[in-house]
This record gives sequence, C-alpha cells and structure tokens, in this order.
Amino acid sequence: MNYTDELPIAAFATTPANSALTLIRCSGKNSIELADCVFSNAKKTTLSEAAGNTVVHGWIVNKDEKIDEVLISVFRSPKSYTGEDSLDICCHGGSVAGKAVMNVLTNAGFRAALPGEFTFRSFMNGKIDLTRSESVMEIVSAKTDISRRHAISRLGGSLEKEINEIKNMLVRALAAAEIFLDYSEDEISADTDEKEGRLPSKEIVNEVLDRLKNLSRSWQVERIYQEGITLVIAGPPNSGKSSLFNSLLKEDRSIVTEVPGTTRDWIEAFVSIKGIPVRLIDTAGLRESDNSAEKIGVARSLKLLDEADLVLYLLNENENEKHECLSKYIYIWNKCDIAPLPNPFPIQNISPVCVSAKTGEGIAVLYDVIASAIFRQTAEFNEELSPVSLGTVRQKKLVDCACISLEEALALEEKEEPLDLIAPLLRDAVNSLGEITGEVSTADILEEMFSRFCVGK
Amino acid sequence: MNYTDELPIAAFATTPANSALTLIRCSGKNSIELADCVFSNAKKTTLSEAAGNTVVHGWIVNKDEKIDEVLISVFRSPKSYTGEDSLDICCHGGSVAGKAVMNVLTNAGFRAALPGEFTFRSFMNGKIDLTRSESVMEIVSAKTDISRRHAISRLGGSLEKEINEIKNMLVRALAAAEIFLDYSEDEISADTDEKEGRLPSKEIVNEVLDRLKNLSRSWQVERIYQEGITLVIAGPPNSGKSSLFNSLLKEDRSIVTEVPGTTRDWIEAFVSIKGIPVRLIDTAGLRESDNSAEKIGVARSLKLLDEADLVLYLLNENENEKHECLSKYIYIWNKCDIAPLPNPFPIQNISPVCVSAKTGEGIAVLYDVIASAIFRQTAEFNEELSPVSLGTVRQKKLVDCACISLEEALALEEKEEPLDLIAPLLRDAVNSLGEITGEVSTADILEEMFSRFCVGK
Repeated sequence: MNYTDELPIAAFATTPANSALTLIRCSGKNSIELADCVFSNAKKTTLSEAAGNTVVHGWIVNKDEKIDEVLISVFRSPKSYTGEDSLDICCHGGSVAGKAVMNVLTNAGFRAALPGEFTFRSFMNGKIDLTRSESVMEIVSAKTDISRRHAISRLGGSLEKEINEIKNMLVRALAAAEIFLDYSEDEISADTDEKEGRLPSKEIVNEVLDRLKNLSRSWQVERIYQEGITLVIAGPPNSGKSSLFNSLLKEDRSIVTEVPGTTRDWIEAFVSIKGIPVRLIDTAGLRESDNSAEKIGVARSLKLLDEADLVLYLLNENENEKHECLSKYIYIWNKCDIAPLPNPFPIQNISPVCVSAKTGEGIAVLYDVIASAIFRQTAEFNEELSPVSLGTVRQKKLVDCACISLEEALALEEKEEPLDLIAPLLRDAVNSLGEITGEVSTADILEEMFSRFCVGK
Repeated sequence: MNYTDELPIAAFATTPANSALTLIRCSGKNSIELADCVFSNAKKTTLSEAAGNTVVHGWIVNKDEKIDEVLISVFRSPKSYTGEDSLDICCHGGSVAGKAVMNVLTNAGFRAALPGEFTFRSFMNGKIDLTRSESVMEIVSAKTDISRRHAISRLGGSLEKEINEIKNMLVRALAAAEIFLDYSEDEISADTDEKEGRLPSKEIVNEVLDRLKNLSRSWQVERIYQEGITLVIAGPPNSGKSSLFNSLLKEDRSIVTEVPGTTRDWIEAFVSIKGIPVRLIDTAGLRESDNSAEKIGVARSLKLLDEADLVLYLLNENENEKHECLSKYIYIWNKCDIAPLPNPFPIQNISPVCVSAKTGEGIAVLYDVIASAIFRQTAEFNEELSPVSLGTVRQKKLVDCACISLEEALALEEKEEPLDLIAPLLRDAVNSLGEITGEVSTADILEEMFSRFCVGK
C-alpha cells in the first residue's frame, strides 16, 4: 500500500497542452499553509486567511521570482473533494507554465500524487463509498453519452443505495436466523409456526437473490456501453462498402474521432450507434485487385472478420456465394434505391437489411438491427427489479459471490440442513455486498482499485 | 470584427482529454443568471446568490437530468479576468462529460467563444493593455522556461511600463515643440536660448531613439527563445552521430517531447539548450549503405542541412574531406576520450570542439558554443538601456515605425527645416507607441491580434 502517508499531495488535473489553462490539484493537512510559502499577491493577503470555498488571485513565486499568475480555490476540511484542506490552482496552459508551477510546489514539499489518490482520500475520509469512487473514473473514461449518464447516476449514489437496500434486507433475514442460533430451541416460544432450526426468512433470501442476479446481468449490457464493440464492413468488390462506411459516419452526430491517416490498408473510425461505442472498420482499402498484395489483403481481411464482434456483409447484385447464417453477420442489400431486393431472396436462411448508402434509406433501421444484434447475446435485464447498472467488473464479481453464497444457503435449507450451517453463508453474502460499497475492505483491494485511476483523480 | 456582441460566451479552457477534470470558462452580462437555469444543488442555493470569488458545488442539469457534478467559481464584475460577471465550471475530464456540459450551456444561451475573446473583453474593459494581453498567449505557447519568464515579466506589466515611460518622454518633447507652434515667435520670450523654430528637446528625442532601437534589437533574441532553431547532427558514417544525439538528450533535463516513432528516416527531438528551444535532428537514420536508397538518403540529408539553422558536424578520425568554414557549422571532434585532437589540426581554418558523447566530457562546453553561435548573428542588446524584451513581431514593427519617424524628425531638424514639419513626426511616433499598449487602436488591428489566440483565452 503506497497511499498511507498523509503528506500534502499535488497533481495535474488537466493535461498540460496547448490550452488556455492548466489545473493543479493539491490536498492534505497543512496544504494551504504550505502553498502560502510560494504564493504572493498585491494585497499581501495569504491563502491561510482565505475562507473555504473562496478564490484568491495572485502569483506562484519562487523566492522573489514570479512563476505564474494564478487563481487559487481554497477548500477547508471537511468541505472538499478529499475531505482534507485542499487547493485548486488554475495556472496558464501550455507545456511550460504548469510544469514550472508544479516544480515550485514539489520543492515546497508537496508530494506528487499517485493515481487515484485524491479519490482514495475521499473514500478514506468517508466522503464517498466505493461505487461512487469508481464512477468518477467511469465518467472520465466514458466513450458515449449513455455511459456518462449511467456513471453519473452511480456518482449520485444510485448503486450505493441499491446495494445498501438489498444488503439491509439480507441483514434482517440473517438477524432472524441468528435468533434461532442464539437461543436453544426450548427458549423459542412454542407458538411460532417456524419449523425447528429452519431458515425463517426464505422468501426474503429468494427476493434478494433475484435482485442480485438481475443486477449481475446488468453488467453484460453496461460493459458493452463502456467498452464498445468492433464492427467490420465486408463484402465483394464494388458492393458499396466505403459508401456504407461514410453513410454510417454521416448519420451519426456524435462521432468521437476518426483515426488519422496511417499506413494501414483499412480505414477505421469511432462512432456511437444507439449509445454504444463502435469501432467501425471499412475493409475496402484491403487491396483486392493488386496481385502481388492480394494474399496479404485476404489474410488481413480474414483476421479482421475474426476479431469483429459484428460484421456488416454487403451482398452483391450477382451474389451467388454460399453464405452461412453466422450469428455475428448482418447481411445487407445495399443500393436498394436502384435495385430492389429480389423476392424470394435466392440465398437460403438470409433476410438482408435493405439500405441505400446513397439516399440514406434504411440506415435508421440498420442502426436498430445493429443495436439488437449487439444486445442479442446479453441476458434479459429487468430495470424494474434493479433500476441501476453495475459499473465495474469488480462489482460484478462481488455480486456473483453473494449469489453463490445465497444459492448454497437455499440448497442447504432445501436439504433441511441445520441453521448453523446456513447462517454463515448469509453472513458471507452480506460481506460481499459490503465490499462493493467499501464498508468491508482490505488494503490490497483498495490499492488494486485506486491504482487503476488516472493521476489527478 | 466578430467580437462586438456582448452575449455570454463559453469555451473549453482545458483540452477535454483523458484527464481528471475539464475547465469551461463562461463570461458576459447575465452569465451567472443564465448558468442558474442549468444548475442545481442539494442545498437549493443558486449561483446568483453567490458572492464574487466563491466556489459553489452542485450539478449541471438538463431539466431533471443530472449531466455532471461540478464546482463553479463565481466572479462578479469588475473583479474577474474579463471584467464581466463570469464563471469557471470545473467538470469531469474525458471526452464526454465536458462536451455534454458544453451542449447544455449552449442550449441555455451561451455562445461559443471565439479565439482570444476572453482576453479581448479583458482589454476592452480596461483590465489589461495589449502588451499584457499578448503575453498571455506568449506564456501558453512558451517552449522553454526562459520564454515563460520573459512573458511572465510582460504579463506583470514590465513592457507596458517601459513603453509608457518612453512615450511620456516623447510627449514632453512634443509639448515643448508645440508651444513654439501655438505661439508666434514674438510671443516667445526673447530671453530663451532656443533657436527660432528649432526642436527644443533634441536630446530627449535622441535618448528615446536609443532606447527604442535597443528595444527593437531585443526582439531578435526574444524571437529565438520563442521560436527556437533547428540543429542538425551530420557527419560521415560511424562518426558517432547517434551517440552525440543521445548525449545531448541525456544532458538536458528539460526535454519537451520526443517525436513518436514514425516512418521517417531521421530522428528528431525537442530539447532546451540554454533556454533556447532546439529541434535536434539526427541524420544517422538516413540510409548510408543501402545502395538502392542511397540517393534518397543523400538528398534528404542535404535538404535537412540546408534548412538547419545550425549544424553539428562530426569529424572522423581519418577525416580528409575538404571543409568550408561555414558560419552555421560547428565542427566536433567526438570520442576525445579515446583519440585526442591532433595538434595542429590537419584541416585549415577549423578548430573543432572536443567532446566525448561516451563520457560526457565537453558537452557543457558544447552547450555554450551552440548558444553563442545562435546569438552570434543577433545585434547587441543592452539590458540596462531597456530592461525588458518585446514579445511579438507586432510590437517590433511598431517600435521600428516609431524609430523611423524619430530619425526623420532628427534629419529635418539637422537640415533646419521648420518645426511644423517636425512636430507631426513626433506625433506619429507617440501614436505608434500608443498602438503597442492599445491606447491607440482600431478594430481591424484588434481583430487580427486576438484571432491568433487559442479558444478559451
């Protein structure tokens, strides 16, 4: 564990680039007094005099030399992101000014913050639980607006609330069971209907299990929104691959980025299709006619198709190849504006999507087809049962752990095994849920988690 | 002129990247009230209630949907960068959150800010003069710490002060001259020693001219610090070009960036040598042995040498080529640790610098030699005469204009031309100096100047 010292820390919270400003974050006990050693302004006021949540104008100085003109937001414990005294130093952008300020700060005694250290301190000081801590990184790495929206909901505490609600149900069930364990059977009043030594709240456990399983399924969908998929456009020469590629780019208003001109033989771009981040690859660039390079082109094409999560395969007007009905293939009849789809379609088991890259006809339908193909393999997620999604694989694993314990408990109950074998399993499930929010945590779990954050968070 | 409306504006002040935070700047009349339409927090406080220079925590919302959790610094006119009511919105980093917030802001009525528009408003509201406005961009685009230091000095008002001081001297000289013009000669008391109609403060004009010429010379040095130079390492095969390249990289602690692996045949890196940004090019990658590519290699090598501001030419132990003593060539005797410099050196007119890339011997001396070679062609700048440097070519041109007017005035004075021909030239010089600080300005000058700024400044 590297996070345990309580020194004042500093880190860039924005990338020093050719932008107007750069933000440096500082936090820790005495960080405000420490910053005063390198701060000066015309009014001769100090940061230490400043109230919490105020902004002070001045200069970062190195002895008598002015390093940069800055605005410093002062936050006083516990009213800050970390819960400690902290400062946001807003200095000039570019590659030099921020670095010069950072040098002065480290010389003054600030330690360079480790990845995730601000959020780690926030968690340790009880400002946010682990699900909200994790959501901070989910927001930063969100690729589409839907990912951001889900992460923002978790940052607002929706998942923490859901997990705590489920856990409290389980704690009540456990408490009821433990009454039977704490007292011998003759102490329990004879007028209860409960069978001797049996799990008294089986229904609650079943309900909890349903909700947790549903929550576990939410991760299958959420992971797609977070990580996205690879979609390859393929088909015979002149089937209109590039037109479709451009058409998919054009329709979409939330293009994230186009990969700049490289020496690659194919073109790729990142687009958002129904909120899913899609790496869209056009294989049209793969040399199909050049003899000497043909083999390379075909091999690359096959590799791309193999790696694809989904393939848009364009059928030619004179298509007569034998096509398998592969689940990851979406067959497309392009140029529907000039050549209507033959009816019946000559290739068995295939019902192509009709589009025209030229007129835009059918593209909206294709979006729906792509989205349902992506989600086809994910299990059904019931939003009414658990209204939020899990945000990380860590959370998913812990939910699954809890499910396994509960299933085991119910199986033992079924076999009428004694309650003192069943109760510890319920306790295990409660602990797994407590680990999700961080109520139960160990140093190595926390280190593993926060070290995957970016610096400055 | 696009800047003239007074709408509330918004812009990214940091690059939305994979960083922890993103800063969005807003400014303009009613900008705080406007932001309140898309702001909400748990305490139900508004931004409009917030005092100037305070930080408010809450959420940017779109109707009922939380878009991002933010910290908003509120600034009240005239105590802000622009002099207007303004806001710094600190939202989450990454490629999505900041954009989502920006969308909400533009939908609420904020106009996307033009490049330099915040600084333009700051100038128009009398917060800073033009030299300080320009210094803001000089800081952002500074490549080395010396550039930053000079720009920071100008941001602190050093150049504004210097220009105003010189201008005031000239205004006094002009006033004295105008007394002679306003009154007919017989009204001037007969006991003055001044010759009839002559320039009464010739000494002042001469002193002003000296200071301005010196200031003009400062730009030759300043431009090198701002723009840097291209330094090419060349020499026969196996003379140790790559070793020297690496040695220069290693010695220097302030490497800005290395150009990532490309398909180029040469390697380049940016280093700071004595505060001068140097684009260092190692031609060792140019294929020297491969026959088929040899021609290309040689041609590229010659082109690089041609474009270089300075060439470090490594001499071989068996060097017998004829070398011209080109002013941009620095000859180097590498491997001085194993082979001492022959004495006398066999090639005429060349006294090489002895270094060892391996042991680091002589590298510090080489730094000095490089720096003096760079500054050799710049005119002597006298820091006592004018203690600051000019920061832009715009300022340089205006200083030169003023010099030309003053030289013309002195020439007329020499020819004993009448004062009513001389005084307008002094007035021209005063106006040129007024243009430097922006006391005298026209819309097109301002537009030309601020449009070269980055967005968010």
